[in-house]
Amino acid sequence: MIYEPIFLDEKSGLPMYRQLYDSIKEKICGGCPAVGEKMPSIRRISEELGVSRTTVEQAYQQLCVEGYLVSRPQSGYYVEAAVIEKSAGSSNEISQNEPEPLVKYDFGSRYIDARSSDLDLWRKYVRSVLSREDIVSSYGHYQGEPELRVQLARFGSLLRGVNSSPDRIVIGAGVQPLLSLICGLLGERAGRVGIEYPCFPHAERVFRDFRLTITELGQDKYGVTPQELYSSKIDVLYLNPSNTESLGRPMPVSRRAQLLEWAERTDGLIIEDDYNGALRFRSRPVPSMQGMDGGERVIYLGSFSKLLMPSVRISYMALPPALAELYRSRGAAYNQTSSKIEQLALAEFIRDGQIEKRLRRLRKIYSEKSELLISLLNEYFGSTAGIRLAETALCAELSVSCGKDSRELAAAALAAGVRVIPTDTGKGSAKLRLSFAGIASEDMREGVRLLHTIISPYCR
Amino acid sequence: MIYEPIFLDEKSGLPMYRQLYDSIKEKICGGCPAVGEKMPSIRRISEELGVSRTTVEQAYQQLCVEGYLVSRPQSGYYVEAAVIEKSAGSSNEISQNEPEPLVKYDFGSRYIDARSSDLDLWRKYVRSVLSREDIVSSYGHYQGEPELRVQLARFGSLLRGVNSSPDRIVIGAGVQPLLSLICGLLGERAGRVGIEYPCFPHAERVFRDFRLTITELGQDKYGVTPQELYSSKIDVLYLNPSNTESLGRPMPVSRRAQLLEWAERTDGLIIEDDYNGALRFRSRPVPSMQGMDGGERVIYLGSFSKLLMPSVRISYMALPPALAELYRSRGAAYNQTSSKIEQLALAEFIRDGQIEKRLRRLRKIYSEKSELLISLLNEYFGSTAGIRLAETALCAELSVSCGKDSRELAAAALAAGVRVIPTDTGKGSAKLRLSFAGIASEDMREGVRLLHTIISPYCR
Repeated sequence: MIYEPIFLDEKSGLPMYRQLYDSIKEKICGGCPAVGEKMPSIRRISEELGVSRTTVEQAYQQLCVEGYLVSRPQSGYYVEAAVIEKSAGSSNEISQNEPEPLVKYDFGSRYIDARSSDLDLWRKYVRSVLSREDIVSSYGHYQGEPELRVQLARFGSLLRGVNSSPDRIVIGAGVQPLLSLICGLLGERAGRVGIEYPCFPHAERVFRDFRLTITELGQDKYGVTPQELYSSKIDVLYLNPSNTESLGRPMPVSRRAQLLEWAERTDGLIIEDDYNGALRFRSRPVPSMQGMDGGERVIYLGSFSKLLMPSVRISYMALPPALAELYRSRGAAYNQTSSKIEQLALAEFIRDGQIEKRLRRLRKIYSEKSELLISLLNEYFGSTAGIRLAETALCAELSVSCGKDSRELAAAALAAGVRVIPTDTGKGSAKLRLSFAGIASEDMREGVRLLHTIISPYCR
Repeated sequence: MIYEPIFLDEKSGLPMYRQLYDSIKEKICGGCPAVGEKMPSIRRISEELGVSRTTVEQAYQQLCVEGYLVSRPQSGYYVEAAVIEKSAGSSNEISQNEPEPLVKYDFGSRYIDARSSDLDLWRKYVRSVLSREDIVSSYGHYQGEPELRVQLARFGSLLRGVNSSPDRIVIGAGVQPLLSLICGLLGERAGRVGIEYPCFPHAERVFRDFRLTITELGQDKYGVTPQELYSSKIDVLYLNPSNTESLGRPMPVSRRAQLLEWAERTDGLIIEDDYNGALRFRSRPVPSMQGMDGGERVIYLGSFSKLLMPSVRISYMALPPALAELYRSRGAAYNQTSSKIEQLALAEFIRDGQIEKRLRRLRKIYSEKSELLISLLNEYFGSTAGIRLAETALCAELSVSCGKDSRELAAAALAAGVRVIPTDTGKGSAKLRLSFAGIASEDMREGVRLLHTIISPYCR
């Protein structure tokens, strides 16, 4: 068996998948297993070596990308080539200008800690839709599948107090295509856009691409101030009231009311990005501004990547009646971007109450994980750092007085195998975010200990 | 058995699925089957009544949308409600301002004539990807999955002469998100955009949304003329050279060379939308302009909806080196819109040679179907109409001298159960397009006969 002489060392500092990848590559290049031979199954390697299936999958996937292995559906993995020729100007290579660092403790926000039971359940729904012939062989509805819009109207109303009929809901593959749609619908009305600082970079990117005039608005401890709104002469306000970055908590209801009053008085429009709005575990979620307003002056944006699976790109928006009418008059000239099959799977998933069940479970998991992370940070960094929970972002925030900036600290941590998220701050202090969504609870202590070892020499 | 007293009449003029839907709804409202009861499987109804599974699925789907049935994954369909209350202001209804007409003969372009073998093969690839744990629980690459970009670079080069490394390829869920990206990257450089007339409406929509100045360019029998390009002072030219609408055939190579010369001389940029560029069956495909140019002044756009399944929204573009560099510098601020699972399924599908196999089969099928449709149109309309094949659009074009315009004729045909695509023309004549991609060969004669009966009274 090819994996018999493979020894993996948990303490080597190299991630397990990387060690496995190196070992298998070496064997293949040594001629055994030979080209054309079938590789042992992921399950089998996982059992024999006592590593997770994900580890084996990552190693196999990398070997596939590089052309050593090939995956044949419903059959398995086969050796494709023993030596990969790298000709100088080969046009079929992915350039290595962004090599993936070897991350052992990932406090980044790219993964979620999915239990296999969740994955299996979601797969069941996708498979069920996939087996329906008419769905796969026809185009989807440009506005999004009607079944899903019905469910989203119900779900948004129930969980977030969103006031919308399915007719006013538009689905898209993430917030960006929806914001592009909004910019197109608003036309000249979107001349000046006000944003919070820091702003969600993907949103700011869209406003810049549309060459709108962007104004960063002054904030106090409750978020954007009404004074700033009136004096800045903006037409549109883009907000994350459930997840105000600079506050680390939702914007209070009183401030929300003041902002809505601004929109009412000046004929302004608010784009409410409710990223992770429902996923709160310390307090009850604050209902959406769109619902407070009745949906006349607020466009509501909701998304599912953290609530479901990050690979599923389904977002939605609820448009005010007049914009919804304009959208429908142009509708056939817009293509739907979100996968039809995943949309229909999500519709049935919501209809069956699965999303609420999942939300309850995630609240419990994240509540426990966040407490663990905060207590570990307190244990290691203690009084030398500011430690704060950013609940909706699923992060702990670590502020240190430091000779280096956040990016430099994050790079040093990454070089040692710990991924954290640098956050822009002024000179003399650095702010790092540690997401607890992706990392396993049992890896947290060692990750925090290592981070402390690396960054404490730079800090005062 | 609930379906025993169901009689379906092929000659009733009502589509079979609609008859089935009506019968089942009547039974449910009559209390048998009762709420909570399990419905017979699609396969069983299909066999017992001798109708296609698609027909049963369409009926069940409609009943699900309306709330009479509910589909439980891996289990089946159940009766959910016997009476649907329609309260006046209910916010959970999809408004009926666009009722679906009852189409018996569909010469529209919304479906493809998918054989179940094709569907099964595609499903096999999706299922295989779906079973990989790491893929479902992590975000995709913003530029598109590396495996797929490697395959697209190879595929584009092989089939369309596209000159690009995987690094310069960007994937998106259709042409619209990619055009939005292009407009954002070009910034002020995209001030004036030249288009053909008629232009692909989804592309024109994006340019209008970005508030660019749009110039419709004059054309001769080879397409857009170089004179027009020089005199119009445009910065960017958007073209469908494989599928020039006004020509009904690809733009000849000599004209392509003249347009490339314009780009070279004036520092202009060409966006080459190669919709269906590879899917030719009467002649060999003309290689892409991007390949002629070497990829410096041309952005190549390719798509898969007609080559694969319409439900799969995967398009790609090959950027010139300078724009690719600009894109990568901003890359992390853009989200990928295309489904990660479908992208990886497509990568393996291409790698295994399935797309070339499918292309060969589609060429044969469409060659036969197009000949049949043209001969039927000649038989019924003969010398009273202009009849032309629009090869890449998978359509036959029917031009008639007529007191009504195209839209009125298409509406009259639709009312009688025949869907055709109206095409804008001047007064006194009407142009209809009939797609042969979706309709079954055996339905074509009756469809053409019916169309002739309806529109000949209006025509001279």
